[in-house]
Amino acid sequence: MTRNDKTTIQDIAKRLNTTAATVSRALNDHPRISKATKEAVKKMAFELNYQPNNIASALRSGKSKLIGVIVPTANRAFFSTVVRGIEEVAIQHNYRVIISQSYDDPKKEEETIDALFSARVDGIIASTGKKTLVFDHYRKVIEKGIPLILFDRGNPELKVSQVLIDDYQGAYQAVKHLIEQGCKRIAHFTSVNKISIYKDRLRGYTDALRDAGIDIQEELIIESDLQLEDGRICMEQLLALKQRPDAVFSSSDYGAMGAMQVLKENEINIPEEVALVGFSNEPFTSYTDPPLSSVDQTSISMGRITAKAFFDQLNADKSDFTPQKTILSPQLIIRGSSQKK
Amino acid sequence: MTRNDKTTIQDIAKRLNTTAATVSRALNDHPRISKATKEAVKKMAFELNYQPNNIASALRSGKSKLIGVIVPTANRAFFSTVVRGIEEVAIQHNYRVIISQSYDDPKKEEETIDALFSARVDGIIASTGKKTLVFDHYRKVIEKGIPLILFDRGNPELKVSQVLIDDYQGAYQAVKHLIEQGCKRIAHFTSVNKISIYKDRLRGYTDALRDAGIDIQEELIIESDLQLEDGRICMEQLLALKQRPDAVFSSSDYGAMGAMQVLKENEINIPEEVALVGFSNEPFTSYTDPPLSSVDQTSISMGRITAKAFFDQLNADKSDFTPQKTILSPQLIIRGSSQKK
Repeated sequence: MTRNDKTTIQDIAKRLNTTAATVSRALNDHPRISKATKEAVKKMAFELNYQPNNIASALRSGKSKLIGVIVPTANRAFFSTVVRGIEEVAIQHNYRVIISQSYDDPKKEEETIDALFSARVDGIIASTGKKTLVFDHYRKVIEKGIPLILFDRGNPELKVSQVLIDDYQGAYQAVKHLIEQGCKRIAHFTSVNKISIYKDRLRGYTDALRDAGIDIQEELIIESDLQLEDGRICMEQLLALKQRPDAVFSSSDYGAMGAMQVLKENEINIPEEVALVGFSNEPFTSYTDPPLSSVDQTSISMGRITAKAFFDQLNADKSDFTPQKTILSPQLIIRGSSQKK
Repeated sequence: MTRNDKTTIQDIAKRLNTTAATVSRALNDHPRISKATKEAVKKMAFELNYQPNNIASALRSGKSKLIGVIVPTANRAFFSTVVRGIEEVAIQHNYRVIISQSYDDPKKEEETIDALFSARVDGIIASTGKKTLVFDHYRKVIEKGIPLILFDRGNPELKVSQVLIDDYQGAYQAVKHLIEQGCKRIAHFTSVNKISIYKDRLRGYTDALRDAGIDIQEELIIESDLQLEDGRICMEQLLALKQRPDAVFSSSDYGAMGAMQVLKENEINIPEEVALVGFSNEPFTSYTDPPLSSVDQTSISMGRITAKAFFDQLNADKSDFTPQKTILSPQLIIRGSSQKK
């Protein structure tokens, strides 16, 4: 690739029918530029493989120019979209992203870090595994002086920058919406794992009910692994109650999908008789009948902000650097499974 | 991780209630061991992080022990499952997998290769991008003497081992099944990209019709990008015909999903009035109503076979090595969208 092939700010401006000055400001997150314009410019910059020369040349040489990203699995819309957001920012800094999967297995997670050391990455961005209890392998990264950023699944013990989602707020919004639809007996599917995100969602659920003056009923809170089959079993358990619920807020879309199947098999109308809301906004949620309401985790922004935190740290004076925690607000997407006419 | 932590063949045998000898034979693909047992053993070996010492020690030292995998996007069930299959085999050879995404963009694909060079990978396994026309970056890999294996989307010009799917056969099976269900006017959604896999599927469609004595009708073959919205538009076009089709075989599940939405909006019964079959067996196909029949691309086997081809080449005498092409048979999964009572 010769230098003449390279995309310029002018190319981006032309494609978006705007000026080079606007593009430059958008790429540098200038406060005067609207969020929508920034989005459009960054998306186009990624598509056209734009790499600013000034930033590239400012970076120290002799680096691998690689960021290693550790995800439980790349085959989840949430994680892959975060990675896409990371790549959008990385490419602007002339960096490339390589991905390693931990499969939520602590031993494999250790190995991913060794693999990324072998690949001589300049930094690591990770979402920790569900079952990880010991974090020594992450401490090894910090000790080596390699920048480490955690996203989505953070860890309070590690002194590194973290970009997280406000799971409490996401759950609170979902349950408040169900109450506004007239639902009074709202069930909740939660996880036996009891990892922090599920605890926060449970707290959002109970607080939303309390704030509306609705009593918490233990029989309506059901623990499982939140997979499709679990959702089926939980829903059957709820239908066997003397008084069945009029809504379910599930901490996962898969759990909500299982509930939907059981409700349809029993010819119970959704959302009129039982309304449903899931969590994560997996792509399949638009394809179900009715489409499933869900809580979107603003994954593309999370990726971009995480990458930005990484480059901030990479370019910071080491003596001057303080880890930061960023908490993002999720967004409730209301669809046919909970919207009554 | 000390050596005492390591999983042994005995551990695997215990968990599967079988003998160490059986496990050993299964791991070495002994012909006497059933396919089901091999599957179970390899799955368990992966879950328990089993790493055979003999193979590990046989490998030359001073290597990164990394395989770089290039996929258009990791966020597709097909690609991520192939990667999982590759990892299952890689871990048995003490290798780790790192993933780099090309986003089907030729320039990004070039950069993935540079990134994997920076990561000092011992080999590259790739599925080429949809729009890649020039393959010089892959030739660079070959010239460097780094083993390169292609899967799913191959290239006849490159002299490397390739593991492909018999797209022709997959399409033929799907259309034959629709004919057996009594369908006579079977439409086909194909891609304007005209890349080899879609051409092969179109050929499978036309041959299955011809072999059943059914005339090919040009008005029933519609080209698009095969996304959900395309499927909607194509289906509306078909419903506007004087005589509408009684089945659609779509070269993508997303296209079939769009068709399903339009049929339901028009209160046309699936499969009684119009039967539907997609391609790729995306996970959402089990969640639609009715569930969508589709052609499964045996992705986990494809991953394992691709990795095996890689290690065969890595361990082969260079003067003695000949690239091989492996063609796998896809499998039709029949669900409610095409199975008439």
